Amino acid sequence: MRQAGRSLPEYRARRGGGSILEMLRHPELVAELTLQPVVRYGVDAAILYSDIMVPAAAVGFGVEVSPGIGPVVDRPFRGAADLDRLRPLQPDDVPWVPEAIRILVKELTVPLIGFAGGPFTVASYLIEGGPSRTYALTKTLMHAQPALWNGLMERLAGHAITSLQIQVEAGARAVQVFDSWVGALSPADYRRFALPASRQVFEAVADLGVPGVHFGVGTAALLELMAEAGADVVGVDWRVPLSQARARLGPRYAVQGNLDPAVCLAPWPVVEAEARVVLAEAGPGPGHIFNLGHGVLPQTQPDVLERLVALVHQEG
Amino acid sequence: MRQAGRSLPEYRARRGGGSILEMLRHPELVAELTLQPVVRYGVDAAILYSDIMVPAAAVGFGVEVSPGIGPVVDRPFRGAADLDRLRPLQPDDVPWVPEAIRILVKELTVPLIGFAGGPFTVASYLIEGGPSRTYALTKTLMHAQPALWNGLMERLAGHAITSLQIQVEAGARAVQVFDSWVGALSPADYRRFALPASRQVFEAVADLGVPGVHFGVGTAALLELMAEAGADVVGVDWRVPLSQARARLGPRYAVQGNLDPAVCLAPWPVVEAEARVVLAEAGPGPGHIFNLGHGVLPQTQPDVLERLVALVHQEG
Repeated sequence: MRQAGRSLPEYRARRGGGSILEMLRHPELVAELTLQPVVRYGVDAAILYSDIMVPAAAVGFGVEVSPGIGPVVDRPFRGAADLDRLRPLQPDDVPWVPEAIRILVKELTVPLIGFAGGPFTVASYLIEGGPSRTYALTKTLMHAQPALWNGLMERLAGHAITSLQIQVEAGARAVQVFDSWVGALSPADYRRFALPASRQVFEAVADLGVPGVHFGVGTAALLELMAEAGADVVGVDWRVPLSQARARLGPRYAVQGNLDPAVCLAPWPVVEAEARVVLAEAGPGPGHIFNLGHGVLPQTQPDVLERLVALVHQEG
Repeated sequence: MRQAGRSLPEYRARRGGGSILEMLRHPELVAELTLQPVVRYGVDAAILYSDIMVPAAAVGFGVEVSPGIGPVVDRPFRGAADLDRLRPLQPDDVPWVPEAIRILVKELTVPLIGFAGGPFTVASYLIEGGPSRTYALTKTLMHAQPALWNGLMERLAGHAITSLQIQVEAGARAVQVFDSWVGALSPADYRRFALPASRQVFEAVADLGVPGVHFGVGTAALLELMAEAGADVVGVDWRVPLSQARARLGPRYAVQGNLDPAVCLAPWPVVEAEARVVLAEAGPGPGHIFNLGHGVLPQTQPDVLERLVALVHQEG
């Protein structure tokens, strides 16, 4: 459960109100925040506490992650000159990442999942300068300057690959690529403008010999293409019943999901009923990782997630 | 093309920066703003210049529509007492609506399409108090207080029905129901929590003897259910190729769409190529209304839309 920490008082106490990217430079703290939901909820894997903007920030592009807003970019990506400001990532740029993972690998009894942003989603923040509802600037650059777009995507694929290599070498046993906002694209645009870079990332993941999860939201029309990019596991949000997702993807791919995080704000009997629907939709066979369809909402009560994990362990 | 006016200098000049809901109370002005894109672009139908929050505001719920933000609600809908504040709509609450339509019917040489908000989308604004990314409060009310939710939806269906009756009696020859954000729901939640009220609206539309268009965004997993609600035409955004949408819906339903509005920000050759893809995907038969998949983006150049309309007239 990504962002599960946000629901925890111990997280909010430890997190305070400071810069997220600054916090991520402290390996002991990152390890502690990564462990919190594992300890509290007893989930079957840990996901590295990180942010999709870490590589861009680490190479000096001028990015901050504001609590409650998300990434904010000082000088958004607008032209060819901006590509020079986005140099390739070197392991020396993020020494705290493998340090945090080495601490975690010693302390964890469950596998650690590495973390990277999908090229399209990172590009959208760099171009828009922050969150967007329309992705108008991103799509305009994509359509009007396809060569520049491809250069940007290749650079961001490189960032993700280097970042995941570092994480796997340090001990991550699977990786998840968060291309959260790729559902803004039509299938044809996804195939042309997003898939090639994502495929590069998943080819590198395959070379690392670990399974890769491909996550997005609002991807009802993109599931097959996200699988085609090379994932082992395709994230599915609540908009597609898992029985349909599995039928569409076939037995080669596992699915992850897909309880609506907003359901976890309802009374427990509703949560339980909806979680049972997810399990029933996934069917009795292997190949389903129970999860929420998106990050935990901050106002979620921790005891609901505790009961949810217990229910899934009992029924799964 | 909804919100086509936003791209026009003559609209911005006339519109100024004042309250949108206040403007809507002036029939001559509403008629003028409705006509502007018809005159400029030569589209085949006009859509009434309106807002989905008109009925809620007209019965005194305390709603404003802020330019650049959207609906803002003074005291959001949170409990049973709020249902009393949302009384049924009477024709006397919106006398300027039929007045504007009577002016328009005299001046227009193309049909006028009436305008209403879908119950789910209007409810989401009333409950959240404004735009939302997660619809957390809306979904919590839906799951935790289903009887109250049903009461709210029934009231909002009534608002839409009364509003559309007024518009058709005054001369609208088709109607469009904007349930823009219904794509936030899973198919199961849509069926249970949104479809019944939308069906009431479309049954009333059928009784009025005019065709009904059912519009939403991010509805790749909901198209069949939106058709089941009773529409004649189902809006499809750019996330689903029209060939797929038509195959899924069958010949009983027409489709409307589905050019990505962001494409219109690209150079003309890109717009032309993408528009031709939409036309090819729709196929040669009847049953396709060419449109954008969502509202016109304000930064769109009017000459691009002029050329787009000309292209569709030439090829369609």
